[in-house]
Amino acid sequence: MDARAYIEAHREEFLSSLDEWLRIPSISAEPEHHEDVRASADWLADHLRATGFPTVEVWQTPGLPSVFAEWPAADPDAPTVLVYGHHDVQPVDPVEAWETEPFTPTLRGTSLYARGASDDKGQVLFHALGVRAALAASGADAPPVTIKMLIEGEEESGSVHFPDLMRERRDRLDCDTAVISDTTMWSADVPSMCVGMRGVTDVQIDLHGPDRDLHSGSFGGAVPNPLQAMSDLLSALHDDDNHITVPGFYDGVVEATDEERELIARLPFDEKEWLSTAASAATWGEKGYSTLERVWLRPTAEINGMWGGHIGEGRKTIVPASAHAKVSFRLVPGQDPVKVQQGVQEFVEAHTPAGLRAGTDFSGPGTRACASDLSSPTLKAARSAMEQAFGKEVLFTREGGSGPEADIAEILDAPLVFVAVGLDEDRIHAPNEKVEVPLLLKGAESAAHLWRELAERS
Amino acid sequence: MDARAYIEAHREEFLSSLDEWLRIPSISAEPEHHEDVRASADWLADHLRATGFPTVEVWQTPGLPSVFAEWPAADPDAPTVLVYGHHDVQPVDPVEAWETEPFTPTLRGTSLYARGASDDKGQVLFHALGVRAALAASGADAPPVTIKMLIEGEEESGSVHFPDLMRERRDRLDCDTAVISDTTMWSADVPSMCVGMRGVTDVQIDLHGPDRDLHSGSFGGAVPNPLQAMSDLLSALHDDDNHITVPGFYDGVVEATDEERELIARLPFDEKEWLSTAASAATWGEKGYSTLERVWLRPTAEINGMWGGHIGEGRKTIVPASAHAKVSFRLVPGQDPVKVQQGVQEFVEAHTPAGLRAGTDFSGPGTRACASDLSSPTLKAARSAMEQAFGKEVLFTREGGSGPEADIAEILDAPLVFVAVGLDEDRIHAPNEKVEVPLLLKGAESAAHLWRELAERS
Ligand SMILES: [Zn+2]
Ligand SMILES: [Zn+2]
Repeated sequence: MDARAYIEAHREEFLSSLDEWLRIPSISAEPEHHEDVRASADWLADHLRATGFPTVEVWQTPGLPSVFAEWPAADPDAPTVLVYGHHDVQPVDPVEAWETEPFTPTLRGTSLYARGASDDKGQVLFHALGVRAALAASGADAPPVTIKMLIEGEEESGSVHFPDLMRERRDRLDCDTAVISDTTMWSADVPSMCVGMRGVTDVQIDLHGPDRDLHSGSFGGAVPNPLQAMSDLLSALHDDDNHITVPGFYDGVVEATDEERELIARLPFDEKEWLSTAASAATWGEKGYSTLERVWLRPTAEINGMWGGHIGEGRKTIVPASAHAKVSFRLVPGQDPVKVQQGVQEFVEAHTPAGLRAGTDFSGPGTRACASDLSSPTLKAARSAMEQAFGKEVLFTREGGSGPEADIAEILDAPLVFVAVGLDEDRIHAPNEKVEVPLLLKGAESAAHLWRELAERS
Repeated sequence: MDARAYIEAHREEFLSSLDEWLRIPSISAEPEHHEDVRASADWLADHLRATGFPTVEVWQTPGLPSVFAEWPAADPDAPTVLVYGHHDVQPVDPVEAWETEPFTPTLRGTSLYARGASDDKGQVLFHALGVRAALAASGADAPPVTIKMLIEGEEESGSVHFPDLMRERRDRLDCDTAVISDTTMWSADVPSMCVGMRGVTDVQIDLHGPDRDLHSGSFGGAVPNPLQAMSDLLSALHDDDNHITVPGFYDGVVEATDEERELIARLPFDEKEWLSTAASAATWGEKGYSTLERVWLRPTAEINGMWGGHIGEGRKTIVPASAHAKVSFRLVPGQDPVKVQQGVQEFVEAHTPAGLRAGTDFSGPGTRACASDLSSPTLKAARSAMEQAFGKEVLFTREGGSGPEADIAEILDAPLVFVAVGLDEDRIHAPNEKVEVPLLLKGAESAAHLWRELAERS
């Protein structure tokens, strides 16, 4: 029986398991649901045991638990693959906006509605079906590669304990490749793989001028105004081509290959539709790049917030004592967040006029971008696996932001490939989240092919 | 008996009257003191009647009353002078910072401490003493010019009803010159006259972008960011020489004469001391002008407040939906606030990138600057009068902001001269306001000389 036939034959069983799991409201951001997150981990552990994983453990953290499972390949020289996903879900507010109960999974047509259906329970569960399908297709009783699964319980609340967990359990997590199943495809008709995610670092910039707000009649025009200086500083962040002027900002940037840019250009991108999603009246951005390239391939500087002086009703003709701005920088592969922070500090100092004092406060060390190596056998295996499942060419996409993926790549020192079948229209993080059942089954089939392809190419 | 001898002889009487008046807490900004403001008007009316003014009236407004008095010259062809001042005072908070009770006048050395001692009761009252001194000196029973006094009761709460009052009573207020006694001199040792006050207009600028805050991972760097656009716009307000780039902004500006700039340069200005008053670590401003010229002679653009996006704790990586700024423009003689507002509107439109919507909201029609004509006989008479009283050359100053003075000049269509003896160190509007008694007496003497000088020069 080939993988597809096995999967078709076990569709109802798969959906019934998923239904059970989706009924557990495992919202990690809400303390009153922390018991549910623990129940969700236990449910998954039981399910993976039933699937046949010889080793299944619930790993406690100072926060909420992850689930670890391992199924060794028969061949001890076969590569090891680690699958990452998460079993916690987003909150459901505003709950009144849901057409059916968020934790009462409801099938309408091919869409299964429930919180977590797409992000990420459906995508974790297709791996259990996929490994069984691989075994059915090969007739073996162990997978062709060693499969480890690491399914986190705090992804939707910032993965705060996850890097430490990976460091502590580093020896158990050793792998040749990490497969991330927590992203989207371009559309149901256009299968694609995410091949990169931007990193981020962010800073609060403070400019302090006079000791107190001054009367602008007496002092205006004769002392430096912190809000004026902040406007000048932030305006200087981009040059006329909207390149970023922070010293050394582009150092090390790994440019996307012509092949990748060409594949991106082939995506059926409708800018008008994108603008309506963005609720914006026009595009904007760095000269020489398309909109998709701007959000996927290019680093950016974004003013997230800004304040100073009199911000209430009416007028108050003052020179304000201080000005403040929060700025985030999206990073691309090759950029070092630490060096970017140094550059930002240098930039702020260089743009602080005499008489003002500047401060920079970075909220943390920042997150590196991550990307797949498009020329690697692993990437080629994954693409080929998806192409077999979908019967179509698989294109490349990226994502503009990221979760814990860069930490996974760094701590486990493993290349990442993204195999996932969510859609942008799945409304993850919003009311009426759903997943396309046919795509989940394609995901299972992709996984089944992937284990074989990886074994063959290693 | 000459004016000075008369004034010296009546010092105690003057101080005892002032003591009475200062005990009335005529705080116009505090409704619980509105009865006191009315009592203050009545007290002044009685005092001017006792001084000898044949006509004294309390003029009601929808707010608090002004006092009007008139004493016609014997010669029907003599010029008419209107004296402006105010009888209301600032609030006294923080009251615990006062060394003696704000409404219990206390003489320490030559300083008389009380709320309103300098601003403006002391300076109004020296005119009553001055006119009696003028009569004593001339031996006549009417002053050499027709003297009208118009003493407002709402100056410290924005003069809201004062322009209407002047318009309604326009015929009674007809005059050849308005003498304003509500400013300061450079210092006790450096007598000076204010010869101009800047006007002001202010605007709130709003830039609207996406319909809601957007996730910067998904949209950052590809849609216009309103805070970025606002920073660019505000940064473009000044060129590299800190000239203002609003179209037509400098149209009609009446430059100060070389004589005035020269007199300003002769003021013993200590920039270090000024910076400590400004609580600023450095000066800043338009190229080609000194600090005093920047605050007195030059129009400015000042960002008073700015806000948008995430301004709370922590980070929120968004493209904000909107950005807001409050900007005030100090104006100099010759600038038309209406034309400046048109220029600002034009400037905002020209600096709004595609995809953003801009709004401008001016808080009112703005206030013109006002200035004395330095070559006029009136100004020369006033300067000569002060020089006789002080026995020294009188220099020129200006003020960076203004109260109702421009309205007085415009509604009464009369040139302004500023004769006043307050000091910057009098702490008007702050705890422990005081006035120098010797300067009040010099003020009375200046007034006495002024009436004679004006009559002689007309
Ligand atoms: Zn997810
Ligand atoms: Zn005053």
